[in-house]
Amino acid sequence: MEFKVTVLGTASALPTVNRYPSACAVNLHGRLFLVDCGEGTQMRMRKYGISFAKIDSIFISHMHGDHVFGIFGLLSTMSLAGRTAPLRVYAPGQFATLLSFFKANFAESIKYEIVHVSLGKITGPSIIYETKTIEISAFPLNHRIAAFGFMFKEKEPAFNIRKSMIENHALSLYEIARLKEGKDVVRPDGSILLNSEFAYKPYVPRSFAYCLDTAPFRELPGWVAGSDLLYHEATFDDSLEDMAVATFHSTARQAAACARNAGVRKLLLGHFSSRFKDLGELLGQAREEFPESYLAVEGEEIGIKLDRHIDKD
Amino acid sequence: MEFKVTVLGTASALPTVNRYPSACAVNLHGRLFLVDCGEGTQMRMRKYGISFAKIDSIFISHMHGDHVFGIFGLLSTMSLAGRTAPLRVYAPGQFATLLSFFKANFAESIKYEIVHVSLGKITGPSIIYETKTIEISAFPLNHRIAAFGFMFKEKEPAFNIRKSMIENHALSLYEIARLKEGKDVVRPDGSILLNSEFAYKPYVPRSFAYCLDTAPFRELPGWVAGSDLLYHEATFDDSLEDMAVATFHSTARQAAACARNAGVRKLLLGHFSSRFKDLGELLGQAREEFPESYLAVEGEEIGIKLDRHIDKD
Repeated sequence: MEFKVTVLGTASALPTVNRYPSACAVNLHGRLFLVDCGEGTQMRMRKYGISFAKIDSIFISHMHGDHVFGIFGLLSTMSLAGRTAPLRVYAPGQFATLLSFFKANFAESIKYEIVHVSLGKITGPSIIYETKTIEISAFPLNHRIAAFGFMFKEKEPAFNIRKSMIENHALSLYEIARLKEGKDVVRPDGSILLNSEFAYKPYVPRSFAYCLDTAPFRELPGWVAGSDLLYHEATFDDSLEDMAVATFHSTARQAAACARNAGVRKLLLGHFSSRFKDLGELLGQAREEFPESYLAVEGEEIGIKLDRHIDKD
Repeated sequence: MEFKVTVLGTASALPTVNRYPSACAVNLHGRLFLVDCGEGTQMRMRKYGISFAKIDSIFISHMHGDHVFGIFGLLSTMSLAGRTAPLRVYAPGQFATLLSFFKANFAESIKYEIVHVSLGKITGPSIIYETKTIEISAFPLNHRIAAFGFMFKEKEPAFNIRKSMIENHALSLYEIARLKEGKDVVRPDGSILLNSEFAYKPYVPRSFAYCLDTAPFRELPGWVAGSDLLYHEATFDDSLEDMAVATFHSTARQAAACARNAGVRKLLLGHFSSRFKDLGELLGQAREEFPESYLAVEGEEIGIKLDRHIDKD
C-alpha cells in the first residue's frame, strides 16, 4: 500500500536554474495523482522517472501561471504517449476557459477525453474523489484568487478479527461479520463478545495535505489536523512578512505555526521566492515554531510510513 | 559586431530528459532575438545565462505547442524581472488568440505592452524588422499549419575608402562621398577615380536562416541561399521518410539536400524525434548529402565568424 509524495517544483512565480514552478506527484495505493502543473512539469516527471501513462487525475490548486502553465504540454504529451482513457482535472471554475482555449487551438492530436471537475462551489472540506480505500478532499485556501488545498488520505480500514479468537471462541460467520463492523455481539447465553477484545484495526490511515498558495487563516489548522505530511507554501521569510500579507502568501514561520497548531507529523516547505539563494534561514525560522520542518527537494521521494498493527496473539 | 546563435531546445513534439522543445536565441549586433518558445525556454535561458532583460523581440514560427507553450511563463517572468519596454512578437495570425487568452487570464502583473505583429499575409521573403545594420525577413514554410522561417542578416555595409588613396590623390569630400556610395568619379581633368580601386567593403554580410517546421519545397533553397548558418529541422531519418511526408516534416537527408542546394556554409540539424536516443545515424545520412552538417546541441553558442576586409595599403 504505497503512499509516496514527490515534489517536482519548489519555485514560486519566478523559476530559477534549480527550482521549477509548482508540481507534486502523489502515489497513493498505486494510483498516481499530479497536483499542480507548473511549466516544465513533464520534463521534471521524465527526469525523475515518473510515468505519464500512470497519471490517474490532475488537481490544480489555483489558476496562477506558475501552477498551471505546464498543463498544455503535459496534456499534449500524454496523448502522444498513447493515452486513451479519460482524464479528470479537478480545478477551479476558471480552468474551463483554459481548457476551451486548449481544445480549440491545440487539441488536433488529443485522443482522450479531458473532463474538468470544477471546485468552484467548495467552501469547506469536501470529498472530490474516492475509492474503497482512499479519499481525496478539497478545501478553500486564502489567496488573491480562488485557490484550493487538497487532502489525500486512506479511509479507515475495516476491523480484522484476531485469529486466535476465531478458534478459541468458535465464532460464527454472523459473529465475525458483526465484529468486523465494529460492534459487540451478545450471544444467546448472555455472554458478550467485545469488539475491542476480538478485533483490531490493521493500520492507522495516513494522510497528506497540500496547501499552496495561501495566507494563514483560522480554519486551516483544523482542516489539515493530524496529517502525516503537510506540504505548505513558505514563499517568504520573517523579514518579508508584510509582503506575504500583501500578496496572500505565507512566511516559513507561519507555515510552521499552522503545522504545530494542526498537530501534523512532518512539515514540508516549498514555493520559495527566487530571492532566496540559500534556504537555511527559512528553515531555521520554521523550526523555531515546529522542529519537524523540512525543505522540499525536487525529485526526492518521501514515503509516508504505514503503522501496521499486527495481530500478536 | 556579435552574431551568435544558441539553440535552447532540440526536441520535437515529445521532449526527453535532455532535449527540450524548440527555442533559439540569436544575438545580432548586441540585440537579442528569441525564435520559438517551447515549454521550458525560460529555464533553458537561465541555465545558459541568457538574459530575459535583453530580449528585443520574439519570433514564433508556427502555432504548434512545442514551439509556443513556453511563452506564457516567459511573458510573466519578463514582467516580474522588471520589463517595461513594449515587446513585439512576430507570429502567425493565430497567435492573436493565444495573446487574448493570456491577457484575459494571466496578465494581472504584466507591466509592459505586448504587440503582436502578424505574419499572416506573407507569401515570400519579406523584411519584418530592420535597423541601420541588420534586417530580419520571414518567409512561408511547408507545414500542416501556417509556418514561417526567418532569415537574420547583416545589411550590405557602406564602402570604406582606402586611407592611402585619400592622401595620395587629395580626395575632396564630394569625391569621398560618391566613392562611398559605390560610384566612380570623373574629375574635371577627365581622369577617372574607380570605386573598385579607391574603396572596399569592410566585411561580407553574414546571415542565419531558421527553418522549423517544414517539409521540403522547391523555393526554400533559393530563399536561404548562401546563408552562413542554416538551422533546419530534421525530425526523422531515412527509414521514416513516409512519416515525414505525412506530417509535413523533413528527414535529416532532406535538410542536408536543402543546405547543399542553397550553398550554405554550415547546416545545423534539430527538432529530433524522441524515438532517436542516438543521433549518429541522422547525422551520417545528412553528411552523405552535405558534409558540413552538425547536430544542434542545447546551450552551445555558435558564433558566425566575420570575414573582415582589411585596408592593406
